[in-house]
Amino acid sequence: MAVFLSARSEVEPFHAMDVLAEANRLTAEGTPVISMAVGQPGDPAPETVREAAVRALRDGQVGYTDALGMASLRAAIARHYHDHYGVEVSPARIAVTTGSSAAFNLAFLACYDPGDRVAITVPGYPAYRNILKALGLEAVEMPTGGEGYLKAENVREAHARAPIKGVLFASPANPTGAVIPENELRAIVETGRELGIALISDEIYHRLNYRAPDVTALSLDPDVMVINSFSKYYCMTGWRVGWMVLPEKLVRPVERIAQSLYISAPALSQVAAVHAFEQTTALEEIKSRYARNRAHLLEALPALGFDIAAPMDGAFYAYCNISRRTNDSMAFARRMIHEAHVAATPGHDFDPRHGERFMRFSYAGRYDDMVEATERLKRWLDG
Amino acid sequence: MAVFLSARSEVEPFHAMDVLAEANRLTAEGTPVISMAVGQPGDPAPETVREAAVRALRDGQVGYTDALGMASLRAAIARHYHDHYGVEVSPARIAVTTGSSAAFNLAFLACYDPGDRVAITVPGYPAYRNILKALGLEAVEMPTGGEGYLKAENVREAHARAPIKGVLFASPANPTGAVIPENELRAIVETGRELGIALISDEIYHRLNYRAPDVTALSLDPDVMVINSFSKYYCMTGWRVGWMVLPEKLVRPVERIAQSLYISAPALSQVAAVHAFEQTTALEEIKSRYARNRAHLLEALPALGFDIAAPMDGAFYAYCNISRRTNDSMAFARRMIHEAHVAATPGHDFDPRHGERFMRFSYAGRYDDMVEATERLKRWLDG
Repeated sequence: MAVFLSARSEVEPFHAMDVLAEANRLTAEGTPVISMAVGQPGDPAPETVREAAVRALRDGQVGYTDALGMASLRAAIARHYHDHYGVEVSPARIAVTTGSSAAFNLAFLACYDPGDRVAITVPGYPAYRNILKALGLEAVEMPTGGEGYLKAENVREAHARAPIKGVLFASPANPTGAVIPENELRAIVETGRELGIALISDEIYHRLNYRAPDVTALSLDPDVMVINSFSKYYCMTGWRVGWMVLPEKLVRPVERIAQSLYISAPALSQVAAVHAFEQTTALEEIKSRYARNRAHLLEALPALGFDIAAPMDGAFYAYCNISRRTNDSMAFARRMIHEAHVAATPGHDFDPRHGERFMRFSYAGRYDDMVEATERLKRWLDG
Repeated sequence: MAVFLSARSEVEPFHAMDVLAEANRLTAEGTPVISMAVGQPGDPAPETVREAAVRALRDGQVGYTDALGMASLRAAIARHYHDHYGVEVSPARIAVTTGSSAAFNLAFLACYDPGDRVAITVPGYPAYRNILKALGLEAVEMPTGGEGYLKAENVREAHARAPIKGVLFASPANPTGAVIPENELRAIVETGRELGIALISDEIYHRLNYRAPDVTALSLDPDVMVINSFSKYYCMTGWRVGWMVLPEKLVRPVERIAQSLYISAPALSQVAAVHAFEQTTALEEIKSRYARNRAHLLEALPALGFDIAAPMDGAFYAYCNISRRTNDSMAFARRMIHEAHVAATPGHDFDPRHGERFMRFSYAGRYDDMVEATERLKRWLDG
């Protein structure tokens, strides 16, 4: 029987996921690996959230929901914009998605046709580039330099080389944790308006800012498309539930595509997520532990010879220049997991050109694990 | 701010989902609609399956899994091929997916590049066509005629018009419920081999065959790609969990694409699905109720002037030619939901050309609802 392999299947692997799979394998074999590879909170979702899912399971049916999500969850998300940002958003503009992964795919499919140019930051989240490529879109790279976040001038430069139709950016950013200052965000939005570029703001690391309050791009222009998720601050990674805030004329196209590509986001996760916004006390306590982890790594990583590459003001990542230790982060990561039993992600994921000199450490885990991991690394590097 | 709308966002809506949304709205407003629109079992997943999810929720974390799925679930699926079909499949060839929806998307992305021609049956599941279109592939239509299932000659005819690289078919089929006889399935596989076409067998309605045992295409050629799901027989629609059985050389490409497009299938659903294969007694009881529903509709629908379009030997659908009642199934469906409070899916979803004369009734609901629905329809049509 013929088996075809498409050219577009030649996307890079998401090395963090390969590292996770390797860590899972080693741990299953009895070698307890501390994983700092994946952006996965060490805590479960708050109990109230989980108990809502338990009630739904005991009540019975877990069926398809409307393609744009349960009305109660769309309303809760709209309320969150009012409560947290003071921004009014109609529930009709909210699309509940199967994680932010589905949201990126839906955004690209609804807005762009093959050959269109969409700009992303380097370093940046690898799935952006891989999904763009799979959909026949051109990922235009915008190097962000030492600040680690997008600036209006990066947009202008990318557009000057050849016109772009979209800019996707994250603040706090992955992998650097850098946060776009409010005046710079305003400049980006104004530049987008001036140049006729649609903006997609990935706000998945909102509420994980250790230095300043969150600013949603929605507060600067109602037609910015915003993507967010319950995975990070709300500790719901494996639940696969996120959302988009859509410009009105994109609501129906996104609904149509979602009906065929996803049918609906997982129903249990939607029922549970309704309660996530009520759990601020529990979630802020978890965030304060990240802050403690962050403080530890800000000292411990440079002492190991891993230089922090950009101000890590948000998210739960430390992006390090490790060129004092190696110029092959992939081989280094592999040795580190097998010899030091610490998993972290090679920079390759985030920066195809300079990634061999970088590595990302997630500090979403437990404080004790952070301390143990850095001690293991010290022994390994000294040994 | 610029808002772009892609040409490919112009896919047809999945009308069944629109009908579901309308039924949900009416029911929420206090008008109890009986929904025969969506292929959604009236029963929840068996208690053992749901309690496994409850235990996972109480244990704590619901995290990302490996992109190809939890090892325990991949092993359970492989065992199912041994136990149910007597076919040996390595767990390494199983990819757990976010429903069969994700499996179709992954299959198309991994195998085909824009412009490639993939043949599908008409009538058929609308998401096939819509996903193909969104990915820049050409959906080649193969009308199946009165039998309602794919035949080898349909493949040969489609390929003769212009070479095709793929054939996607379902047995039992949606919307007709027709089952490909074993000798015809063998002829399709041989034709695929002869013409150098890759085959994708959608087996989501397996174990819902009322006349004969299931035959998986895998038993005829190990390189057929098989797609299946826990949604239908296992009553887990809203859980969003399904699987693919992959030819070996597609495993890594599918894994790479899935890492970026999905990260992983919902973790709770995976934990629960492991137990689905143990619940044959409970699930066969549910199937016996579908058989009773089917027997009722085989009499009641023709009596209403809705002629059964093909032998409905499997799945839980009756596909009817309603031209004795209307030649505009879309308007008819809309009136039916508002006036008779019964929801069914206009044929448009399944057949863009002749759908206006057809309608699909799902009989996955409760027996009492089937009886009540046909009585409502009788009163409405007589009234």
